[in-house]
Amino acid sequence: MIKAGIIGSTGYAGAELVRLLMQHKHAEIKWYGSRSYIDKKYYEVFQNMFEIVEDKCLDDNMEELSSAVDVIFTATPQGLCASLVNEEVLSKVKIIDLSADFRIKDVNIYEKWYGIEHKSPQFIDEAVYGLCEINREKIKGARLIANPGCYPTCSILSIYPMAKEGIIDTDTIIIDAKSGTSGAGRGAKVNNLYCEVNENIKAYGVTTHRHTPEIEEQLSYASGREVILNFTPHLVPMNRGILVTAYASLKKSVSYEEIKSIYDRYYKEEKFVRVLDKGVCPETRWVEGSNYVDVNFQIDERTNRIIMMGAMDNLVKGAAGQAVQNMNLMFGLEETEGLLQVPMFP
Amino acid sequence: MIKAGIIGSTGYAGAELVRLLMQHKHAEIKWYGSRSYIDKKYYEVFQNMFEIVEDKCLDDNMEELSSAVDVIFTATPQGLCASLVNEEVLSKVKIIDLSADFRIKDVNIYEKWYGIEHKSPQFIDEAVYGLCEINREKIKGARLIANPGCYPTCSILSIYPMAKEGIIDTDTIIIDAKSGTSGAGRGAKVNNLYCEVNENIKAYGVTTHRHTPEIEEQLSYASGREVILNFTPHLVPMNRGILVTAYASLKKSVSYEEIKSIYDRYYKEEKFVRVLDKGVCPETRWVEGSNYVDVNFQIDERTNRIIMMGAMDNLVKGAAGQAVQNMNLMFGLEETEGLLQVPMFP
Amino acid sequence: MIKAGIIGSTGYAGAELVRLLMQHKHAEIKWYGSRSYIDKKYYEVFQNMFEIVEDKCLDDNMEELSSAVDVIFTATPQGLCASLVNEEVLSKVKIIDLSADFRIKDVNIYEKWYGIEHKSPQFIDEAVYGLCEINREKIKGARLIANPGCYPTCSILSIYPMAKEGIIDTDTIIIDAKSGTSGAGRGAKVNNLYCEVNENIKAYGVTTHRHTPEIEEQLSYASGREVILNFTPHLVPMNRGILVTAYASLKKSVSYEEIKSIYDRYYKEEKFVRVLDKGVCPETRWVEGSNYVDVNFQIDERTNRIIMMGAMDNLVKGAAGQAVQNMNLMFGLEETEGLLQVPMFP
Amino acid sequence: MIKAGIIGSTGYAGAELVRLLMQHKHAEIKWYGSRSYIDKKYYEVFQNMFEIVEDKCLDDNMEELSSAVDVIFTATPQGLCASLVNEEVLSKVKIIDLSADFRIKDVNIYEKWYGIEHKSPQFIDEAVYGLCEINREKIKGARLIANPGCYPTCSILSIYPMAKEGIIDTDTIIIDAKSGTSGAGRGAKVNNLYCEVNENIKAYGVTTHRHTPEIEEQLSYASGREVILNFTPHLVPMNRGILVTAYASLKKSVSYEEIKSIYDRYYKEEKFVRVLDKGVCPETRWVEGSNYVDVNFQIDERTNRIIMMGAMDNLVKGAAGQAVQNMNLMFGLEETEGLLQVPMFP
Repeated sequence: MIKAGIIGSTGYAGAELVRLLMQHKHAEIKWYGSRSYIDKKYYEVFQNMFEIVEDKCLDDNMEELSSAVDVIFTATPQGLCASLVNEEVLSKVKIIDLSADFRIKDVNIYEKWYGIEHKSPQFIDEAVYGLCEINREKIKGARLIANPGCYPTCSILSIYPMAKEGIIDTDTIIIDAKSGTSGAGRGAKVNNLYCEVNENIKAYGVTTHRHTPEIEEQLSYASGREVILNFTPHLVPMNRGILVTAYASLKKSVSYEEIKSIYDRYYKEEKFVRVLDKGVCPETRWVEGSNYVDVNFQIDERTNRIIMMGAMDNLVKGAAGQAVQNMNLMFGLEETEGLLQVPMFP
Repeated sequence: MIKAGIIGSTGYAGAELVRLLMQHKHAEIKWYGSRSYIDKKYYEVFQNMFEIVEDKCLDDNMEELSSAVDVIFTATPQGLCASLVNEEVLSKVKIIDLSADFRIKDVNIYEKWYGIEHKSPQFIDEAVYGLCEINREKIKGARLIANPGCYPTCSILSIYPMAKEGIIDTDTIIIDAKSGTSGAGRGAKVNNLYCEVNENIKAYGVTTHRHTPEIEEQLSYASGREVILNFTPHLVPMNRGILVTAYASLKKSVSYEEIKSIYDRYYKEEKFVRVLDKGVCPETRWVEGSNYVDVNFQIDERTNRIIMMGAMDNLVKGAAGQAVQNMNLMFGLEETEGLLQVPMFP
Repeated sequence: MIKAGIIGSTGYAGAELVRLLMQHKHAEIKWYGSRSYIDKKYYEVFQNMFEIVEDKCLDDNMEELSSAVDVIFTATPQGLCASLVNEEVLSKVKIIDLSADFRIKDVNIYEKWYGIEHKSPQFIDEAVYGLCEINREKIKGARLIANPGCYPTCSILSIYPMAKEGIIDTDTIIIDAKSGTSGAGRGAKVNNLYCEVNENIKAYGVTTHRHTPEIEEQLSYASGREVILNFTPHLVPMNRGILVTAYASLKKSVSYEEIKSIYDRYYKEEKFVRVLDKGVCPETRWVEGSNYVDVNFQIDERTNRIIMMGAMDNLVKGAAGQAVQNMNLMFGLEETEGLLQVPMFP
Repeated sequence: MIKAGIIGSTGYAGAELVRLLMQHKHAEIKWYGSRSYIDKKYYEVFQNMFEIVEDKCLDDNMEELSSAVDVIFTATPQGLCASLVNEEVLSKVKIIDLSADFRIKDVNIYEKWYGIEHKSPQFIDEAVYGLCEINREKIKGARLIANPGCYPTCSILSIYPMAKEGIIDTDTIIIDAKSGTSGAGRGAKVNNLYCEVNENIKAYGVTTHRHTPEIEEQLSYASGREVILNFTPHLVPMNRGILVTAYASLKKSVSYEEIKSIYDRYYKEEKFVRVLDKGVCPETRWVEGSNYVDVNFQIDERTNRIIMMGAMDNLVKGAAGQAVQNMNLMFGLEETEGLLQVPMFP
């Protein structure tokens, strides 16, 4: 039985980790970290856990935690994991960081986009970007996983085969993304109140969102050249779900069948990536509560562009589900263990 | 492996049955009945099932079906199950009817409230009302289960201990219930369009809703006297969930502790009924996607009334989940098999 | 032109006052009070007011304000208005208080239910309860108006004719109310975040909600005897709207026509109260954005009860609209001035 | 008093026309056309109109109607207006067509994208594209107005100054649009049911949406060269609102101030187009219920692109509001008459 600790277990991503790990055969949670709710029963924060979780919330003590568990999930604000991790900790325990601290290899880019100093840049190189479908082998041997961001997971998986195979002109990539509100976290802010979000749609962080360099870096690896792109996130009045609509110019004329065969080749063996049938657009409702990413594309011969689309649950494949998928790989378990929830509809 | 057939698999309750049975260790679906979508792939109707269900929809043929499976779930409009069932079918297969056809013992009451003729009244007596927490032993030996209605399940479980123990004056019961929109079914009606339901709350079926006599009958059994009550359902702009707020006068002065101990006595051993802590009101968000019913109460000394509250997922404990729970009991399986989904939040 | 000042103009009720007064022919806002946003442009808080309101927010200074305007609206937390008002202020300016400070005549009851000391009980007697349909004449001559609460407005107007005419047994009144989330205010609290409210319904303040004594007092005046009742509010995932479903036993057998004629008699001349056609239930969507209250009833012969229903927009007739209606009466204007917005659907 | 008739008054756009015209000083509705509800009281279809509209629905008879009124609004499915209009009708009455029949000057393009034969191509030339901010003078003298589509109105107004001034490379325009569900109409379709739309976002009509050629034609006029672009609409779980996020490459390096001054020059005198302050993104909540379009832009120096954004209420400026604005111009009234509703929030 893998002993797991969660630092930041009372945010939405932390709570989703709890939900998934409670249904995992080979893992048990030993530490519900939550600086805000120390000594409060976990189920008093999330009543869905009544009669399921009896533990109380504990402080976010990584030192102590590293001796008590086999794996630590950090679902915390940017900068916290980097400030807590050190060689001693890493020698004792595996860390899966759901924050952005170790996702970007160039520390200058991290510090510029995030506006904070990186407290342990010496571990950036070692950290593995935990997008399982792409870095599976590296993940298996890693001590420190940078769990990908929600928008990057959906964006990269939607575009990756096209970038990797050189089908698209990577200078023309535009990603227009839409997210449910759980992505904004559980902090008490006026902007996230029900009446402010409901009956509204807006773009935010236009040209400045922090997930931009993360997507660019991964697509640069894929295409073998530097990718600079536009990424525009939008806030949608729904709880869960991310939809990515990405645009790029085709480098040459290609048929539907050619593109379809490429996507199939990349994802046929991937349990959690579903390439939809011709003409079927991904929709967030069809993946809710599950670890699936649904992808598809449409060629526009009039403009010589391809529209690449992806839908997933931001809290599962975009956060906690992918973290568990990484844990499974790191501990030699079946990759799908604890992650076979059938999407819930409606 | 139990072989299951579903008649009416493309409504919301039918689809939820599919979701639950796909995660059940000892059951497999052999027949996806759907008169509206014959020969269409099931996943084309519900894309969440893409790469999960490969079958096509079949006609609603109970004769043929009874030879092919061990259990038939009918998630169909009122009257259909009663028109299809016969002794030969029942001799070969167990039937769990999610419609109202066999819930009410007095066929006159059924015909009056439902406005249709009952086509097989000879089986009403045999049918067992499948509220597992109350009729567990009878369910185990039944051939034909009348799976309870969504509102009745939540209403009865909220009130039952008080009625049974004679704590409340059953002449004073008023049930004010609120339901998510999936309870209205997947039929294409203007009243259920997004823009008609969203940003709205309304009562409907005031004094005339068909679940009234079902609740009355069960509470009459519990209290040992005829119960006539008010039941008012409301439509709430959300997908899933039923909340019951029930009022009754106390027959004598009682303390919180006395009432609490009664609820605990009735439900302590019940996995799927959670009696909440003092002062915590049931909320539908805490049971979404799960088979739990959360109940609690509040005593009002000023008016000498008790307010009894219950929350559950109308598609799970209120329909498909309870049907699976019944199946488990009928086939001698662990009652909770396939039903231990942790509630999903948010 | 009436000069108006608003203390608390950046809450939801305050903002609705601004919306309505901007469309009022004979009033203009001279003071946008908001302690939280002093010196910030009003439209920067509410971007709907861009190019409509150019003013900046000012401090909540009632002394200064009383010399600058003809009428002050206080849309502030409980206790603030009572702490600011004095004889000098009242000698110069009319006050319409949207908080609860002057609604309850018995100061002990106020202090018990609200848990705060009343700072100016000497004005309670003078204050007029501003439910225009009932206290119209008194309002015309008042200096200080206690603008009714949202739930009380809808509850009282739904029940009033029945209580006044002695049709119902007032000992049996149960009010089950449902409100949109704007009623919870614009404060940044976790419980009001989008993901907490969406896809959820819950009761709150069961047996303890502060609007209970306000409703009881008014219905006591109507019926001529002390009324004690149950009032249970629920939070609904929508922005605006209150629905009241009220139950009471009939004192004798009455026909639909008898009751209908009573409601018609009370409300036929009332512009803002619409008695719906037989069998039509009030729904919040049909009054959104308007000052209407839609009421109707259903007699249940089986239980000898009447179900009285009402629907209105909590921010209009339940707050800002009624405040403007009061202002119109106090200043001798047409009662409907600025309040004839057609309900917006969808 | 202008006498108005509405053909198709019981769809969402038709109902919004009724709402707006009821608040218009110089117009009155003489004909509530609705083939589906002939002889039914209008308020029985839309209960918000109870005690406001007493008329019954009438058949869609344009001949008879043309003698009875001064202006006819057709809020009907594609093809109907074209099949009803003729010279005699046009000689007697002005027509404002909210369908697409007369929006596209090249009948072949219309027939290809809409898949139907145009029944009166002889009037296409005469028809004026009723985007008031651009074609104001032509509208004043027109007999037949092609009221613009919802997406085109928002898209064109967001992009127009940049296309007209040659700031952007029109070969690179990508429009990613998001709409509330009222845009899908009031037809009873499974895809528009509450539970299908709620908690979901999806793209639809990718590369094939019929508003594409309408936008292209207008931007071609603006830029003086043929524009071919990508337009991708998305369905958002909300009632009202359209948000456009449009991307294009800049032809040369420009500053924020230069672009801002262009937008201001085009829209400073336009009551209904609001160019927001620097850094403020348009949001649909700030225009709900009003005729405003909020626009803004963001320059991305990294990619040399400009992101142009617009938000409006699809039923007002995107349909009924613009139709009334056109009527005002055609009849020599104040352009803003009946259209000064302050946006409603929340």
